[in-house]
Amino acid sequence: MSDHANTAPRPLRLGMVGGGQGAFIGGVHRIAARLDGQYQLVAGALSSDPERARASGAELGLAPERCYSDFRAMAQAEAARPDGIEVVAIVTPNHLHHAVACAFIEAGIHVVCDKPLTTTLADALDLQSRLAARPAQRFALTHNYSAYPLMRAARAMVASGQLGEVRIVQVEYAQDWLAEPLEATGQKQASWRTDPALAGPAGALGDIGTHAAQLAEFVSGLTPQELSADLMSFVPGRRVDDHVQVQLRYANRARGLLWASQVATGEENHLRLRVYGSRAALHWDQEQPNELTFHPAGEPARRLTRGMASLPAEAGAATRTPGGHPEGYLEAFAQIYRDFAEDVRDAQAGRESPPRVPGLSDGVRGLQFVEAVLRSHAQNAAWVAL
Amino acid sequence: MSDHANTAPRPLRLGMVGGGQGAFIGGVHRIAARLDGQYQLVAGALSSDPERARASGAELGLAPERCYSDFRAMAQAEAARPDGIEVVAIVTPNHLHHAVACAFIEAGIHVVCDKPLTTTLADALDLQSRLAARPAQRFALTHNYSAYPLMRAARAMVASGQLGEVRIVQVEYAQDWLAEPLEATGQKQASWRTDPALAGPAGALGDIGTHAAQLAEFVSGLTPQELSADLMSFVPGRRVDDHVQVQLRYANRARGLLWASQVATGEENHLRLRVYGSRAALHWDQEQPNELTFHPAGEPARRLTRGMASLPAEAGAATRTPGGHPEGYLEAFAQIYRDFAEDVRDAQAGRESPPRVPGLSDGVRGLQFVEAVLRSHAQNAAWVAL
Amino acid sequence: MSDHANTAPRPLRLGMVGGGQGAFIGGVHRIAARLDGQYQLVAGALSSDPERARASGAELGLAPERCYSDFRAMAQAEAARPDGIEVVAIVTPNHLHHAVACAFIEAGIHVVCDKPLTTTLADALDLQSRLAARPAQRFALTHNYSAYPLMRAARAMVASGQLGEVRIVQVEYAQDWLAEPLEATGQKQASWRTDPALAGPAGALGDIGTHAAQLAEFVSGLTPQELSADLMSFVPGRRVDDHVQVQLRYANRARGLLWASQVATGEENHLRLRVYGSRAALHWDQEQPNELTFHPAGEPARRLTRGMASLPAEAGAATRTPGGHPEGYLEAFAQIYRDFAEDVRDAQAGRESPPRVPGLSDGVRGLQFVEAVLRSHAQNAAWVAL
Amino acid sequence: MSDHANTAPRPLRLGMVGGGQGAFIGGVHRIAARLDGQYQLVAGALSSDPERARASGAELGLAPERCYSDFRAMAQAEAARPDGIEVVAIVTPNHLHHAVACAFIEAGIHVVCDKPLTTTLADALDLQSRLAARPAQRFALTHNYSAYPLMRAARAMVASGQLGEVRIVQVEYAQDWLAEPLEATGQKQASWRTDPALAGPAGALGDIGTHAAQLAEFVSGLTPQELSADLMSFVPGRRVDDHVQVQLRYANRARGLLWASQVATGEENHLRLRVYGSRAALHWDQEQPNELTFHPAGEPARRLTRGMASLPAEAGAATRTPGGHPEGYLEAFAQIYRDFAEDVRDAQAGRESPPRVPGLSDGVRGLQFVEAVLRSHAQNAAWVAL
Repeated sequence: MSDHANTAPRPLRLGMVGGGQGAFIGGVHRIAARLDGQYQLVAGALSSDPERARASGAELGLAPERCYSDFRAMAQAEAARPDGIEVVAIVTPNHLHHAVACAFIEAGIHVVCDKPLTTTLADALDLQSRLAARPAQRFALTHNYSAYPLMRAARAMVASGQLGEVRIVQVEYAQDWLAEPLEATGQKQASWRTDPALAGPAGALGDIGTHAAQLAEFVSGLTPQELSADLMSFVPGRRVDDHVQVQLRYANRARGLLWASQVATGEENHLRLRVYGSRAALHWDQEQPNELTFHPAGEPARRLTRGMASLPAEAGAATRTPGGHPEGYLEAFAQIYRDFAEDVRDAQAGRESPPRVPGLSDGVRGLQFVEAVLRSHAQNAAWVAL
Repeated sequence: MSDHANTAPRPLRLGMVGGGQGAFIGGVHRIAARLDGQYQLVAGALSSDPERARASGAELGLAPERCYSDFRAMAQAEAARPDGIEVVAIVTPNHLHHAVACAFIEAGIHVVCDKPLTTTLADALDLQSRLAARPAQRFALTHNYSAYPLMRAARAMVASGQLGEVRIVQVEYAQDWLAEPLEATGQKQASWRTDPALAGPAGALGDIGTHAAQLAEFVSGLTPQELSADLMSFVPGRRVDDHVQVQLRYANRARGLLWASQVATGEENHLRLRVYGSRAALHWDQEQPNELTFHPAGEPARRLTRGMASLPAEAGAATRTPGGHPEGYLEAFAQIYRDFAEDVRDAQAGRESPPRVPGLSDGVRGLQFVEAVLRSHAQNAAWVAL
Repeated sequence: MSDHANTAPRPLRLGMVGGGQGAFIGGVHRIAARLDGQYQLVAGALSSDPERARASGAELGLAPERCYSDFRAMAQAEAARPDGIEVVAIVTPNHLHHAVACAFIEAGIHVVCDKPLTTTLADALDLQSRLAARPAQRFALTHNYSAYPLMRAARAMVASGQLGEVRIVQVEYAQDWLAEPLEATGQKQASWRTDPALAGPAGALGDIGTHAAQLAEFVSGLTPQELSADLMSFVPGRRVDDHVQVQLRYANRARGLLWASQVATGEENHLRLRVYGSRAALHWDQEQPNELTFHPAGEPARRLTRGMASLPAEAGAATRTPGGHPEGYLEAFAQIYRDFAEDVRDAQAGRESPPRVPGLSDGVRGLQFVEAVLRSHAQNAAWVAL
Repeated sequence: MSDHANTAPRPLRLGMVGGGQGAFIGGVHRIAARLDGQYQLVAGALSSDPERARASGAELGLAPERCYSDFRAMAQAEAARPDGIEVVAIVTPNHLHHAVACAFIEAGIHVVCDKPLTTTLADALDLQSRLAARPAQRFALTHNYSAYPLMRAARAMVASGQLGEVRIVQVEYAQDWLAEPLEATGQKQASWRTDPALAGPAGALGDIGTHAAQLAEFVSGLTPQELSADLMSFVPGRRVDDHVQVQLRYANRARGLLWASQVATGEENHLRLRVYGSRAALHWDQEQPNELTFHPAGEPARRLTRGMASLPAEAGAATRTPGGHPEGYLEAFAQIYRDFAEDVRDAQAGRESPPRVPGLSDGVRGLQFVEAVLRSHAQNAAWVAL
C-alpha cells in the first residue's frame, strides 16, 4: 500500500470553477482532490450567481475574498496572489469548458478539466494549440475510468503482448437515468445534459460514449480507423441522442462494437470492456472494478484482483489498499488528481516528464470520435474515417 | 415436475440421417430423443459409406436391414414398412438438409432438422412450399436455445407487456473453437463448417449467428426491418466468416446489435441476450441457463430461477426438475423432441394445433437474415431491408 | 463427447420399486436410466396399492403382468423369468429401503438404491453383510452429487496432491422448502420426510446432510474422526430436525464445518463445497455445476469448466457435451446409472472391477454420520467419535 | 449524494498514535479522516523511536514540535495547547490500546481506536468505567465493516421486521495471508499479530473473528447466548490461532456458525454474512460491497445496490456517489470518521446524542466473545455462556 502523502510535504493550492450547491461532479472532484492529501481547496467560482457563489464557498470553508462569481476575474486575481491557486478544476457544464480553460491557461494555472473537453472539435483543437505554446503548463482530463488500477494493468498487459494481436473490442456503457423524460421535471443534471446549447450536440454520445471510446482505446492501444454509427432518441421530445451504437474498424483489421445508452432500463453505470486477442482475452466491468478476467487461449480463465503482487507495476502504483479491500470510483478519480499532482510538481521543478494522466490529446480524440459519429449518423450510418 | 412419459404410452419410431461415428450433433439428437422416452431409434442412414453406416447402426442397436447408406432408399423403404419410422432426424452437414428433407417430406414422414435449414434461401422457400402442400406433415427445426424454459418465460413476459415497449436488443454468441486454423488439421467439425460447399456461404454467421438472430426474435417478438453488417475472417486462409457484427433496426424504432464470433478467445458457447424495454429489462446467459434477470425500472433486479412457481406457465411446461436442480443444454434440446412428439401425435390423430416448436418459417427467416447480412456486407455494411 | 450407447448394444432390463404417481425421485431415476440408453424399464412395484400400481405402470408402458403391488412377489417373479429384470431401482420412502434391498439381493438382482441407504445403522450393516456373501452382486447408492464431472475432477485433483495437505473443509446444503409447516398441508413429500416412522430419526440431517457429508468425504478424501453437532427444529410441531450444524475434526488435524438446513429462506438446492489445502483451494456450487474454482496459493483463481481438455480424465469420462453446453442434475444422476451399467456388465461377464459408483460402504458411513450427529446432539453437542 | 463538507465549516484537529513508516492501518485511518474533509492531522506520536517519529511526522507535514515519541507526553502537551488536537486516532499494536486510550481519555481528548479494543476483557471493562465517568467524551471503535451503507441498510431491514424472526446466522471471514509462517520472515504485520505479547492471546480470532462477530450482531440484532468453539494453529510454530470455528446459540433459539481463518488459501479479505429469517434472507459479501441480496420467501431474490432510492435512509446517509459508482473499504472506513465528527461536534456543543458509530460497548462485547471462545476451546469446545 502506498500512502502517498509520505513523500509530498505541501498540498497544492486548488481552485474550482463550477460545482456549487446542487452539482454532482464538483463534489466528486473535491473528494478526489482531498483523498490523497495532495490538494487544498482555497478558491472558487462555484457559481456565476454571486449569492450562490458566496454561499457555496462558505460551506466549503473558502475565505470570502476568494469566492468569485466570474471565472475570468478569478483567474486574474489568483494569478496575482503570492498564495494563488496552482491548479484549477473545471466542473461546469460542457459549453463553458473552453472559455474557462482558456482563461486559466492564459493565467498560467494548471488545469484539471472534466470531460468532454469541449462541445466542438474546433474548440478542442484551439485549446490544444494554446497549450502547445506553453510547454510547462499541465492539463488533465478526468477520464477517470481509465485510472482504475486494473485498467492500467489491462493496458500494460495488452501493450506487452499478452493478448497477442487484438482482434475484437467490445465496449458498452449502459445507464437508465434518462429512460424517462427527466429533463421535463426540471432536474438539473438532466436539463443541462439534454440541452444542446449547454452540453453540445451529443447526448449519451458525449456524456458516456466518449468514456467508452477512451477506455477502449486506452486499453487496446488501438484507434479506430473508420466507424459506422446509429443514434437514437427514444424519449419523445428529447433534443439529443440517448442511445448510440457504433461499428468500429481498426487499422490492424480488428473489429469493434461500442454502444452507450442512457435508457437501458435497470442499468446504473454499467461500463464494460472486453478485448479479445489472438492469444488471450480480457474482460472488465466497472461495477466490479476490483477484478479483471484474463482468459488465455486454451487455459482456464483467471481472476486477477486489484492488489495482487503479480499484476503489472502500473496497477500497484495506483492502489491504496491490499487485495480484498475494495476500492472504487472515488479512488480511481482520486488517482487522476494524485498523478496530476506529480505532473504539476514536475512542471514547477522544471522537470520534463510524460503526462501521467489523460490530457488534451485524449480530449481531441474524443471530440473527433463524436464528430465522426454524428457525421456517420447523418449519412445513415455510412462508414466514415476518423 | 412433469414426467412426461406418464401420458404417452408408445414411443414414436425415429430414424436418423447423418450422425455416424465421429459426428457431434447426431449424438445430441439421440440423447434428446431418448431423454423423455418419447422416441425409439429404429433406423438410420448414419453415413453414406455403407461400411460405416452399418457399423454406426450396430453400435446403436439398429437391425442390420434398417441401416441404410442412401437416405432416399431409406425414405422409401421406411415409408413402405408397417413399422416404418414416423419421424426422421436430419443431422447431416448443412448442404444436404434440403435434399434429405425433400425425400422424407415426399415419403410422408415427419421431420426434425438441425439448423440452419438449408444453405440457400431458395432451398428454404422450396421446402416451405412443399410442406404447404401437406398440411398434416410436421417439421421441427432445432433452434434449441429458444426451448430453454427461461427463454420461453422471457418470451411470455415480453408478449404480456411486462417490459413495456422494447427499445434495445443486445444479442451475442461468442465461441473460440475456430480461433486457430483448426480446419487445416483435418478436424472433421471444423473442416465441413468452414467449407462453403458443405456449410453454405456463411460461416459463424450461419452456424451461430442464426441462433442468435432466432433467439432475439423469439424473445423480443420483433423482426428486424433493416440491418447493416460487417463480416470478418480473422484466421488467414479461412474461406468463410468467423466473426460477424450487425446493427439492427426494428419497425417500432427499437435498435439492436448482434455479434457472433468463433474466434473470441476464451469463450466456450456464450450466447447471451439482453432486452431492454420502457418498463423493464431481461438478461439471460446460456451458460447459466437456470436463471433469468428481470429488472423492472426503478426497482431492484430480480433473479428468476427455473422451477419457480411464479414463472409463466410456458416455463413450467418445459421443466423436469425443481428449482436448484440445474437443467441444461440436453434438456432444452430434448424439449424440442418432447414438444414435437405432441405435434406429431396431433397430426396422427388428425388434430390441428399450432406448432409447439420452431419450424420452417423460422428456417426461412434465418436464411433471409443470412442473405441480408451477406448483401449488406457486400455493400460495405450499407443498410439493407430484410 | 462420449455417446455411450455406441459401445453398449443391449440395454439392461430395469425394474422399479416405488415411484408411482405423485412421487418425485422415481421420475428422476427413470429419466436418468433412459438418458444414456443403457436401461429399459420393464417391470415395477410402483405402489403398494394394486390399483395405483397398475395405473402407474400403464403410464410407463409396462406390461400388465409386470406391474406388481408387492415388491417381494416382484423379486421372485422377475428372478424366475428368462427376461426378468437385471437391475432394480429402489425409490420408496427410506423406511422400506432395507426390506426391498434384501428381497432383491436375495433374488440375485443388482440394486440401485436411493439414499439414505436405510433408517438405522444396524440395517445398513445388515445389508453390507448380506452383500459381502454375494461378491458378484452389485449395489449402487445414488449419491448423485458426487457424480458431477467437476466433483470427480475435484476428487482427482485432491488425490493427486494439487491442494497440498487439506486443512479446511466447508460444506453446506441449504434449502427452504420446509421453512413453513408444509407437512401440515398433507403435501406428500413433506409428510413422509418429516415422519420419523417413514424417514427415520433424522430429518434434514438424513435427507440432505448425508449428501453434504458424502460429497465432502468424496472430494477431500478425508473421513471425520470426531464431530460435535447441534440440531434444531425451527418449525413448531415438526418431529425431526430441519437444521443441523456440525463441527468436524479429521485425523490429519484438518477442521471442517457442515451445515444443512431445509428452512434457509430463499435457498433452492444450494449444496456448496469448499476445500482449502496448504497449496490450493477448490470451490464448487451445485447450482452452477459446470464450473469449479481452483485457487492456487499466491496465484489468480482459475475457473475450470466442464469439458475442458485439461481436466482430469475422470471428468471427461462423465461428460456428454462440450464446454459451454451446460449439463446438470439429471446428467449427473444419469452418470450413476451409466457407470453402474458397466459395473453390472462386468458382473455378468464375471469380470472383477472396483465399483464405479457410491455403494454400500458409502451408505454405511452415511448412517454412521447420522448416528454420531444424533449422539453428539443428545449430549449437548459433545465431541463424539465416528 | 451527500458532500458532507457542505455543512461542516471547520475540520477537527486530529492527532495519531502509531502509524509511522511501514504501518498499514495508520495510512488507512489517515485517508479515512481526510476523505470527507472533516479532520486535519496536526500532531502525532507515530513511533516510540524519536528519530522515526520525527521522520514519519515530517512526511505527513506535521510541525516538528508536534511530533512526539511518547504518547503520554503528547496527550499532556496537546491538551495544554489552545490549538491542541480534539480527537486522537489510536493505531498501535493491540497491547498498547489500553494505555494510550487511558492517557487521552484522562486528557479530555476524544478517541478513535482501532479494534480490538484491548487485549484483555479486564482492560476493556476498565476503559468502559473510565469513560462512564466522563459522559461528554466520545469514543469510536473502527468496526469499519458495519459502516458500509448496505450493512446499515441490512441492520435497518432486520430491525424493521422484513426478515421475520431471525433463524440462522452464517458469518465467515477468510484470508490467506498467514497460510505460510510469514512471521518467521520478520514481516512486520505478521510478527506483531502472531505475538501474544503484542496482539493478545487471540490470533485470527482477535484480528478478524471479532469483526465477524460484530458484523453478525450489528445486522442481526442478536447477541449469542452460548457458544462452542474450536481453534487451530495450522502453521507449525505459530503461537496463536490462525483458524477458528464457532457454533452459536441465540436467546430466540436462532442458530449460527462463525468461522474465521487466516490460512484459507486463495482468500483475500472475504468477510461474508448471511442472515435467514422466517420471512426473508439477506446475503452480503465484503468483496462486492455495493450489492446486497434480499430474498423474500417464495419470491425471486432481489439485488439491492448501494445508492438505490428505496433503501433504508441509513444507507443513503452513508453514501457519497450514485448507484453504479462503486464505493469500497476506504469509504466505509471514512464513514466512521465522518459520523464520529458529528458525535464530537455534538459533545463540543453540549448536545446529547446516541453514538453514531461503534464504541466501547462493542469493544467490550468483542472481548467477551474472545474470552468465551478461548474458554470453550480450553474445554474441548464445550458450550459456554457469553
